[in-house]
Amino acid sequence: MAIAFLFLYFLAFAAATTSHASIPLEDLKTIHPLRPTATATAGHPLPGIDCLSWRLAVETDNIKNWDLVPATCENYVGHYMLGMQYRHDCDVVADVAIKFAKTLRIPKDGRSIWVFDIDETAFSNLPYYAGPDVAFGAKPYNATSFDEYAATANVPALPASLRLYQNLVKLGIKAVFITGSSTSLEKARIINLKRVGYYTWEKLVLKDSSDKRTSLVFKSEERTKLVAQGYRIVGNIGDQWSDILGNNTGSRTFKLPDPMYYVA
Amino acid sequence: MAIAFLFLYFLAFAAATTSHASIPLEDLKTIHPLRPTATATAGHPLPGIDCLSWRLAVETDNIKNWDLVPATCENYVGHYMLGMQYRHDCDVVADVAIKFAKTLRIPKDGRSIWVFDIDETAFSNLPYYAGPDVAFGAKPYNATSFDEYAATANVPALPASLRLYQNLVKLGIKAVFITGSSTSLEKARIINLKRVGYYTWEKLVLKDSSDKRTSLVFKSEERTKLVAQGYRIVGNIGDQWSDILGNNTGSRTFKLPDPMYYVA
Repeated sequence: MAIAFLFLYFLAFAAATTSHASIPLEDLKTIHPLRPTATATAGHPLPGIDCLSWRLAVETDNIKNWDLVPATCENYVGHYMLGMQYRHDCDVVADVAIKFAKTLRIPKDGRSIWVFDIDETAFSNLPYYAGPDVAFGAKPYNATSFDEYAATANVPALPASLRLYQNLVKLGIKAVFITGSSTSLEKARIINLKRVGYYTWEKLVLKDSSDKRTSLVFKSEERTKLVAQGYRIVGNIGDQWSDILGNNTGSRTFKLPDPMYYVA
Repeated sequence: MAIAFLFLYFLAFAAATTSHASIPLEDLKTIHPLRPTATATAGHPLPGIDCLSWRLAVETDNIKNWDLVPATCENYVGHYMLGMQYRHDCDVVADVAIKFAKTLRIPKDGRSIWVFDIDETAFSNLPYYAGPDVAFGAKPYNATSFDEYAATANVPALPASLRLYQNLVKLGIKAVFITGSSTSLEKARIINLKRVGYYTWEKLVLKDSSDKRTSLVFKSEERTKLVAQGYRIVGNIGDQWSDILGNNTGSRTFKLPDPMYYVA
């Protein structure tokens, strides 16, 4: 019986294929013309939030100060973060940053630095964010559970950023890590950075949990200190706009994707 | 014969559907799990440029000073621009901008202004950019043919921007148009703005074709003049980063999508 069905299915499929292939190429073009399409996503408008538009608006800093990934976009963000698109998006940023770094003439005085953020930049916290209590940022941020995860010192590198770092080291540009994560995590972060391949750096600056400055102000002021100490910030990379806006942002800034959370 | 085939096809399809529907829900979940996906775009890596990553990198200002849409992305950009996604992406920007504008307390002195760029902001040049000689920016920019198109004064409004404009007028915020398009187009632009629904504005500033300043410098200096004249720039919207970076950018800036061209 099953074999009979398979055979019938094959016959019908073969007939359908043949009939399809006999349509002239021009008619096929008319069936799906490039020019006058008025539809997308199979022709039906998406109800409610368009998660692609939401993500683009977040990445371009049009939507600011958002608390949570919209509930209807949890699955979309999850698929994006776990799929290849996020990795490709990060890789393209690293490619552009490496290309830029290679155009620089780096003096041999050891004062050229590149500022890296840590979370979702040097590291990827995806193993934590994929958990059911976090749901890719669709559930509220829990500082305690995040710090517990960070304290394991077992957070993977974001491969694109590690590749950028390796290229910068070769070019004689030193890394400076400026992170909003707590000074109480300093030891864990040092172990973790070395463990995943960030072997050396000029400075590692963490933020005391009692420090009430916004990330933008904290990072701006820390970069200003670096410049006052005679460093040249030749590049600056982060996943948040607050990493790369403000004062002394560096000769050029790079924004990695992050649709999971917003830091002001 | 055709009817016999149709019947067989129906039978086979019904069998396949039934057998599919009899798979327990848990097994279906296992067939496509959210968690450990290592693939995207149907599992095969995209060769060469990832057009989605390229567009994101362009929209986030990671890729700067680019000349042309990569040839392999012409079709991708064309589909994006003609499909609903571009319209949704623009609408989300307008939604956020309108929401922001409604939070403002606008004094009754008539000095509150919103700066609009024109091309790919107030207007959409898609009828021009979809042409075979332009190919959505995959072919080099031709100032002569673009100016001929603009001179028709028949360029459609970008619906999202027109909606923003209408809301701003109601709130007592005046529009100022600052455009890199040539002063020789002033008459056409005035007719065109009114024709598509931008009925009134405080100023319309065009750039003389002999003016060699970059768009960023030109627009910054024009905004600075406005501030010197006592205007308050409460918002600023454009499709280029050069519209919204620089000096006196305004209380808040909004970036519309544009994967077709780059203006420094």
